[in-house]
Amino acid sequence: MSADGYTVAVAGATGAVGREMLRMLDEQNFPIRRLVPLASARSAGLKMDFRGTEVEVAELTKKSFAGVDLALFSAGGARAKEFAPAAVDSGCVVVDNSSAWRMDDDCPLVVPEVNAAALEGHKGIIANPNCSTIQMVLPLQVLHELGGLKRVIVSTYQSASGAGQSGIEELLDGARKSLAGEEMPAEVFPHPLAFDSIPHIGSFEPSGYTNEEEKMLFETRKILGLPELASSATCVRVPVVRGHLESVTADLERPVSAADARAAMERFPGLVVMDDPANAVYPLARDCVNRRETFVGRLREDNTLPATLHFWVVSDNLWKGAAWNAVQIAEELHNRGWMRV
Amino acid sequence: MSADGYTVAVAGATGAVGREMLRMLDEQNFPIRRLVPLASARSAGLKMDFRGTEVEVAELTKKSFAGVDLALFSAGGARAKEFAPAAVDSGCVVVDNSSAWRMDDDCPLVVPEVNAAALEGHKGIIANPNCSTIQMVLPLQVLHELGGLKRVIVSTYQSASGAGQSGIEELLDGARKSLAGEEMPAEVFPHPLAFDSIPHIGSFEPSGYTNEEEKMLFETRKILGLPELASSATCVRVPVVRGHLESVTADLERPVSAADARAAMERFPGLVVMDDPANAVYPLARDCVNRRETFVGRLREDNTLPATLHFWVVSDNLWKGAAWNAVQIAEELHNRGWMRV
Repeated sequence: MSADGYTVAVAGATGAVGREMLRMLDEQNFPIRRLVPLASARSAGLKMDFRGTEVEVAELTKKSFAGVDLALFSAGGARAKEFAPAAVDSGCVVVDNSSAWRMDDDCPLVVPEVNAAALEGHKGIIANPNCSTIQMVLPLQVLHELGGLKRVIVSTYQSASGAGQSGIEELLDGARKSLAGEEMPAEVFPHPLAFDSIPHIGSFEPSGYTNEEEKMLFETRKILGLPELASSATCVRVPVVRGHLESVTADLERPVSAADARAAMERFPGLVVMDDPANAVYPLARDCVNRRETFVGRLREDNTLPATLHFWVVSDNLWKGAAWNAVQIAEELHNRGWMRV
Repeated sequence: MSADGYTVAVAGATGAVGREMLRMLDEQNFPIRRLVPLASARSAGLKMDFRGTEVEVAELTKKSFAGVDLALFSAGGARAKEFAPAAVDSGCVVVDNSSAWRMDDDCPLVVPEVNAAALEGHKGIIANPNCSTIQMVLPLQVLHELGGLKRVIVSTYQSASGAGQSGIEELLDGARKSLAGEEMPAEVFPHPLAFDSIPHIGSFEPSGYTNEEEKMLFETRKILGLPELASSATCVRVPVVRGHLESVTADLERPVSAADARAAMERFPGLVVMDDPANAVYPLARDCVNRRETFVGRLREDNTLPATLHFWVVSDNLWKGAAWNAVQIAEELHNRGWMRV
């Protein structure tokens, strides 16, 4: 970092998440001397606005990182696999939003409110967890501290924006066509999404789970430092534009009251409790859009078991689930003096 | 029953479920001598078509049941509480679709494929379970027979039609308005439903669960004959027009392979297995509409526990979840010679 800030690259700058990364860096007043937006050859040459200045998108190559201090990647797994090591070789710290490096033992997998300390001694590549995992581990960390986490079961209600801008467009186009009695498209999603719910996000593994579901298991274990945690996810795409919603069951080692859990969640950074069901208050997708926080509601004790709690957790998958968590990691690296390979 | 069939009343005949009851009775060639459609005073005098004949809707009163052998009720809990005993006093057998009588020890709660035998010795009122319960207990009964059911966790994806025709209209109107950038209605549902998901169906109990969620616990226990079953439901309204979808976790006493469970479900009456994820085959709402069957997919063993299975179950909430299950009960009563008080 020179006196006037870092040189920061954003790889995948023109995508749905990349654009939000630029916005977050700006809104956070992150100390940036020079911004380097990178994208595929197709998007190179595009002009983007950053802090009132026009910057030109360059093609992402192995030579893109000379003189760059920090690179935020949201360019997919294949590009992260190919380009992140080259960036690190150039002396650049990488925060990658893809799944490419998440389970690598040399790469911290970080949700700052939960495990910022895992950044210590990083080797250049830091992984941003999957959107559906990030929002869930905040309340789970609270419950783990209170009662010891034994098992997690989650069913998700994930929005079209998880598949990028083309996912949003396919949902809205499909809804319009359905209302007009026309056939609905299914190119981005495996089936028409409007007015239905599809239990299929990502690709299927031999286990019968999708890779999205397995990410929620393995990433949660790594972030919480609980390698033996029993857990299962069912990931479902619902016709929501933006924001992921999740129904979560947590079995604990020791009974914890819903009241104690609620109070602890209210104190936890990044969490907002919206839990007044008598007045129909619980988080909805509409509540989380363009918000950095993760919202929790429907917190209740199990009717039949002594040490089980259930809750509903909602967050903006493009913000806390992606761009904002990545920028938070960058801020931690900066504040702790760890912005170096 | 006279030689040419029963006199059959349908209370709530003009509602979304009542209309499907008439259709099912017709399609099943149920032995009907005379059909008596009943509704509130507001709808009395309306003409309905049944088997090519016009029949006039009469007002539901305590005197409606003279000479009636069988009454299918889909008129809400308050009317069922008020009018079902009067019907039974007139010598009429009642199959009630509301929650009014379900937990009464004198009233069998029946899903015919699972517990038709519970109809024996009935005292006149037979309860039809809640839509979200019915579709879940079919695969659960299979798993219970194979491995002994210990615990059930379910998150639902329930359609607007569960709130009747006005629910469907509010969803479609809301979707149209949202696409046009206009404000969405929220009169039937507690919040605008289009492009969101609402974890609130029914009303909240002191436990923090909704009554819809508690129905799934208590009704499942009664139907399966497992009064101690550990179970928890999270019921969520999604912007789907018709058909309920559910993500279910079943903990068993003994390990059962997904393959064995799948084979047993394929043999079980009323169940259809749609489970070929490699080819994106799993049940969707669009698959179940106007179908009597319950559809199961995403059947898989837990990645972390030895005796846990997960599945996805989908059914038409207006058919198997309501009208068809009621007509099935009527057929059982007829076939077993139990159509008498």
